[in-house]
Amino acid sequence: MSPTPDWVKALKPSTPAGTDLLKAERDKSQISVDKLSNFLFTREVLERQQRILEILQSEKIFDKSQNYFDGRVDKFKTALARGKKLRLLQVKHNWNNDEYMTAYDLVSETGPYVLHIGMYLTTLRGQGTPEQKKLFLEPAENYEAIGCYAQTELGHGSNVRGLETTATWNPEDKTFILHSPHLTASKWWIGSLGRTANHAVVMAQLIIKGKSYGPHPFVCQIRDMKTHEPLEGIHVGDIGPKFGYNSMDNGFLLFNQVKIPHINMLARFSQVDPDTSKYVHPSSPSLVYGTLTWVRSTIVLQSGGTLARGVTIATRYAAVRRQFQDRDGQKDSNGENQVLNYTMVQFRLLPLLAATFALHFTGKAMMSLYQENQQKMLSGAGTEASASRGAGPEETQSSSDLLADLHATSCGLKALGSTTAAEGLEVCRRACGGHGYSSFAGIGSWYADYLPTTTWEGDNYMLTQQVARYLLKSARAVLKGKAPNNDTTKIFTTYLQKQDMGAAHDILGSDSDLVAAFAWRTSFLTFEALKHRDLEKNSWNSLLVDFWRLSTAHSQYLVVKNFYEALQSESLQQELDPELVGVMHKLFRLYALHTLEKEGAEFYSSAAVTVRQIQLTRTKAVMKLLEEVRPHALRLVDAWQFPDWQLDSALGRKDGRVYEDLFHRASELNPLNGLTIDPYPTSDVLIKRDETASFRSKL
Amino acid sequence: MSPTPDWVKALKPSTPAGTDLLKAERDKSQISVDKLSNFLFTREVLERQQRILEILQSEKIFDKSQNYFDGRVDKFKTALARGKKLRLLQVKHNWNNDEYMTAYDLVSETGPYVLHIGMYLTTLRGQGTPEQKKLFLEPAENYEAIGCYAQTELGHGSNVRGLETTATWNPEDKTFILHSPHLTASKWWIGSLGRTANHAVVMAQLIIKGKSYGPHPFVCQIRDMKTHEPLEGIHVGDIGPKFGYNSMDNGFLLFNQVKIPHINMLARFSQVDPDTSKYVHPSSPSLVYGTLTWVRSTIVLQSGGTLARGVTIATRYAAVRRQFQDRDGQKDSNGENQVLNYTMVQFRLLPLLAATFALHFTGKAMMSLYQENQQKMLSGAGTEASASRGAGPEETQSSSDLLADLHATSCGLKALGSTTAAEGLEVCRRACGGHGYSSFAGIGSWYADYLPTTTWEGDNYMLTQQVARYLLKSARAVLKGKAPNNDTTKIFTTYLQKQDMGAAHDILGSDSDLVAAFAWRTSFLTFEALKHRDLEKNSWNSLLVDFWRLSTAHSQYLVVKNFYEALQSESLQQELDPELVGVMHKLFRLYALHTLEKEGAEFYSSAAVTVRQIQLTRTKAVMKLLEEVRPHALRLVDAWQFPDWQLDSALGRKDGRVYEDLFHRASELNPLNGLTIDPYPTSDVLIKRDETASFRSKL
Repeated sequence: MSPTPDWVKALKPSTPAGTDLLKAERDKSQISVDKLSNFLFTREVLERQQRILEILQSEKIFDKSQNYFDGRVDKFKTALARGKKLRLLQVKHNWNNDEYMTAYDLVSETGPYVLHIGMYLTTLRGQGTPEQKKLFLEPAENYEAIGCYAQTELGHGSNVRGLETTATWNPEDKTFILHSPHLTASKWWIGSLGRTANHAVVMAQLIIKGKSYGPHPFVCQIRDMKTHEPLEGIHVGDIGPKFGYNSMDNGFLLFNQVKIPHINMLARFSQVDPDTSKYVHPSSPSLVYGTLTWVRSTIVLQSGGTLARGVTIATRYAAVRRQFQDRDGQKDSNGENQVLNYTMVQFRLLPLLAATFALHFTGKAMMSLYQENQQKMLSGAGTEASASRGAGPEETQSSSDLLADLHATSCGLKALGSTTAAEGLEVCRRACGGHGYSSFAGIGSWYADYLPTTTWEGDNYMLTQQVARYLLKSARAVLKGKAPNNDTTKIFTTYLQKQDMGAAHDILGSDSDLVAAFAWRTSFLTFEALKHRDLEKNSWNSLLVDFWRLSTAHSQYLVVKNFYEALQSESLQQELDPELVGVMHKLFRLYALHTLEKEGAEFYSSAAVTVRQIQLTRTKAVMKLLEEVRPHALRLVDAWQFPDWQLDSALGRKDGRVYEDLFHRASELNPLNGLTIDPYPTSDVLIKRDETASFRSKL
Repeated sequence: MSPTPDWVKALKPSTPAGTDLLKAERDKSQISVDKLSNFLFTREVLERQQRILEILQSEKIFDKSQNYFDGRVDKFKTALARGKKLRLLQVKHNWNNDEYMTAYDLVSETGPYVLHIGMYLTTLRGQGTPEQKKLFLEPAENYEAIGCYAQTELGHGSNVRGLETTATWNPEDKTFILHSPHLTASKWWIGSLGRTANHAVVMAQLIIKGKSYGPHPFVCQIRDMKTHEPLEGIHVGDIGPKFGYNSMDNGFLLFNQVKIPHINMLARFSQVDPDTSKYVHPSSPSLVYGTLTWVRSTIVLQSGGTLARGVTIATRYAAVRRQFQDRDGQKDSNGENQVLNYTMVQFRLLPLLAATFALHFTGKAMMSLYQENQQKMLSGAGTEASASRGAGPEETQSSSDLLADLHATSCGLKALGSTTAAEGLEVCRRACGGHGYSSFAGIGSWYADYLPTTTWEGDNYMLTQQVARYLLKSARAVLKGKAPNNDTTKIFTTYLQKQDMGAAHDILGSDSDLVAAFAWRTSFLTFEALKHRDLEKNSWNSLLVDFWRLSTAHSQYLVVKNFYEALQSESLQQELDPELVGVMHKLFRLYALHTLEKEGAEFYSSAAVTVRQIQLTRTKAVMKLLEEVRPHALRLVDAWQFPDWQLDSALGRKDGRVYEDLFHRASELNPLNGLTIDPYPTSDVLIKRDETASFRSKL
């Protein structure tokens, strides 16, 4: 397109400028952004982030200016080039895993090596014998072999037992034959498989002498190490574009009687004796139990940060954007109202701001509880294996019971956290009005890339069944007087004791009563569900909706409780000054009361609170908290410390130069403007001049 | 990539095949799909659709096989070529506007001519004088000039009064000077402007002798008719990629003192006298009143069909997809359960299925009520202008009051309908599990393209203020005994009469009581809001959240009422057989009770129903309706009559060949598989072979 004329370059946004509005907004509050940031992340982590940011910004390949314009193929090519560079930087700067992951966080794009790092290496480390580690892990760690983890199939998602791919033991030449008996057996959705990996850990049904032993992991080379062409008997490729995540080559994979040696079955936990063809049973059938808890706790922790990006962008822009005059306000000619002043906008954004902290503290608490428990188990008599079965010997009873509790609660919290983040991001995007729809807002693609989190590591709806199952089991144990001592059984016991006296929670006056009201609702729903299942003998399927509600209620209780406990913690009281503690306390109450109000029906049908209390919460308490939190909103999002480079958002710029940035991207970076068309339908010409390619010369 | 090997071509999905599952599913119900389709759309419309479908399918340019792969630039080029072809087909087949729009519906892609058709032509027709029509409209109707409608600015969305672009009257040479005083004055989001239009209707502040007369429409040529280059003093381009809608070139536009003749101000309703420089006041300041009502009713009607696409895809796929065994079921070795059997899936999908019909009937009813009223006004003494002011002369009182009622309710229904459709589509996408995330599901892009509907024609949150304002006004009139006779004042009167006696709605036994419970809740919330505003003198801003709740409640009442009335209508009773009527009745109850349960808190705090009734609705009534509707689900979505070609969804195929289609698209249509990479980070080579371009040779 024609270059920007000088008269355009001379134009400025109308006043007041975004920069001034954000400055005024920050001046409304005195809370210390740095103290809060250091408390949330530690100074060390923030310094690491800054150090790595500078390295990345100095490399041309990480220039983000074409990110929002790239189509699928270019997106993938760029991500591949960036993945290679990140690996080279890791070697050059001797980055440990935390530093490597910080770099990925800042780039904020899923690259083709991500599953090699996250799943292939992890699986080989966890499930390989020393011999297998030497053979497969070493070259993989040196990026001489690139791998992926192939479990899901075209016709089979969460149900691993339903997998169709077979690995048949062949005693004659001591090999396994990998085979895909149907089209639905095709591996599908496998990250890094589509174009990148030359190895895969393949989950397949182990078959010995016609008998199936269930799914087991097999290492299989799938592409030539030099030509990168698929090997004989292998059909592999990318599964096509997705709603998001398009920098990743999720792939498919079919086997036609592919032979692999005995050593390729990962054998740390179960194996086939090559001489007798006997199956050697796993030493720990549910070893992943603890690992999954850890992974899910990470998702809870990250859900806070994920949502915080959207809240940061939307809050900053709501302070820059002005629209209409206040209906009751003075009619000064030009004075449009900052959007953040509208209670309807506050009501949409500020509870989400509160949720970012609530989820952060909950994730942190889950992770340290898990680590504490692991320590206890390791130092105690119980082995990892016996503890993880959930019914180990007497001496590890308490830590394994705690682990079972942690496991179940991590399922529910993973579902609640990722749903809150995903849906909250979309609320943030819409709260930005029309411009929220622009890619330059930086929320849409972030949301679209995050969405799979609601499905993987357990579909959010499926997980709620596990939570319900655990809560029912605990309730039965409490009724029988055989309950282990943990938080879940404690709240059930309290409920049963007080059930006939009534609750009378002073939710508007007392924080601990507020937490107790959430515990009460969980307990009520649990014993209701128990009645439906055990007394009325309703089918499991007929109760799935009840179970989903129960799991949600329980998880909301946990988030409220964890936020409350974080507020009481010594570290918080010491590191934050009183004003900051006061604001955090308001955020706690906002999160809890807003949730309580939203789920009002369950709170009063369970008699946790009265109708009048809900009414007051709705019309008074929440609205007052919004007003009290609002002056601190900008400093609170600043405390999340997202560099502008990471957010890559015209609306969420820390300096408020929103309109300049939107205009610059549209007018100067947009390849479509290199296209001059012929507008008439009768013309034979479609395009008069096509200079779109000149925008893309970076690779 | 390498061609598909023969052994892959020979593979079939595992049994039972999707085709058989869908057949069995359809066999579960005896309701007549054709009767329902004809009732919903008329036979004539369905035949028209079929006729035009055949024409489109025979043209290569409408081949959809690369749609999901195209990047922004290719998407736009293809859409432009298709737009040209659609116009040529319109001329060739002499299509009227309905036929032209049917073609666009089937293509299901917003092209660069859409705003020329929808806004430029419409505005010229509605606001031009005969002389202006000759000058501007005629060439535009012949596509010799291509136009757009430029209102929104970078810094100004919904608030038209805040627009910054000026049109200053110059009495010396009888011209207007269009000018953008700031960067924020740049027109922004203007559809068809970015690369396509050579004309624009520009909304600008009219300034005569230093005095501003508010925004007025001006026709302005912006690009050369031959070279298509921007004219002197004009900076114009595309605003960049968006979350969806990327086949459209939304544009920006800046003016540097651009001179246009007097004739270019659209002068049907207000003008500047060229000799005296006097402003001639508009004959009808709120003429758009009626038009907007019409446009919003259309959005309500379309929201049903929009959502129905997602529900069709998700319901069909839920009948093909099988996952896990029923926990209480028999343990037969291979028998995974159809996902549609799970109550958790039914609970997510079937109320949305009910909503598609509810919104369809509501949109229909709104439109015929509007047309009836227009007829009445035209035949009566009231002119269009006086009636639309909402306070016309005595003899048109009732029809103008009805129009005011219709206007307000159309605002609320637009907000509820488009929010229901947008959020419902995302529920449908997630209900498809992992594969819902694939572009081939056909829901993600449809959802992303639809999202702006929640913002345009009035932001959904902003609109709720208009509804509340109207309801408050009506309530005040009822209290004063001066209320016009319409449905809104009727339900308020009933509420006031019964308020002290209590409600006692038999929602589980009586349909009319169910409707009345919704009316009661609306009335309760209205008088509560009135108390807060008029007695307690709360600020307007402090009540925005209450107003939003009130508008939602009122709109839900209207949808329930319209569905109920459609069921009672003679035409439905005559055209549908008793079994079909029975199923529609269950859908009505499902929509109403599911909504009531979801909004339970407001229903019992208003004393419309008791806590016990909500409990029963939750745990029994809704679950029973799900069970009763489920056997008919597939036939009900079939009745929406979406051709496979229109849906373009691997998951939503009418024949159930889901896995074959997913595999075909991934393995044979996917350009990324033309890329062979070098996987090693230390290698200098990024791409070994790039054949992605060969997938794109259609233009």
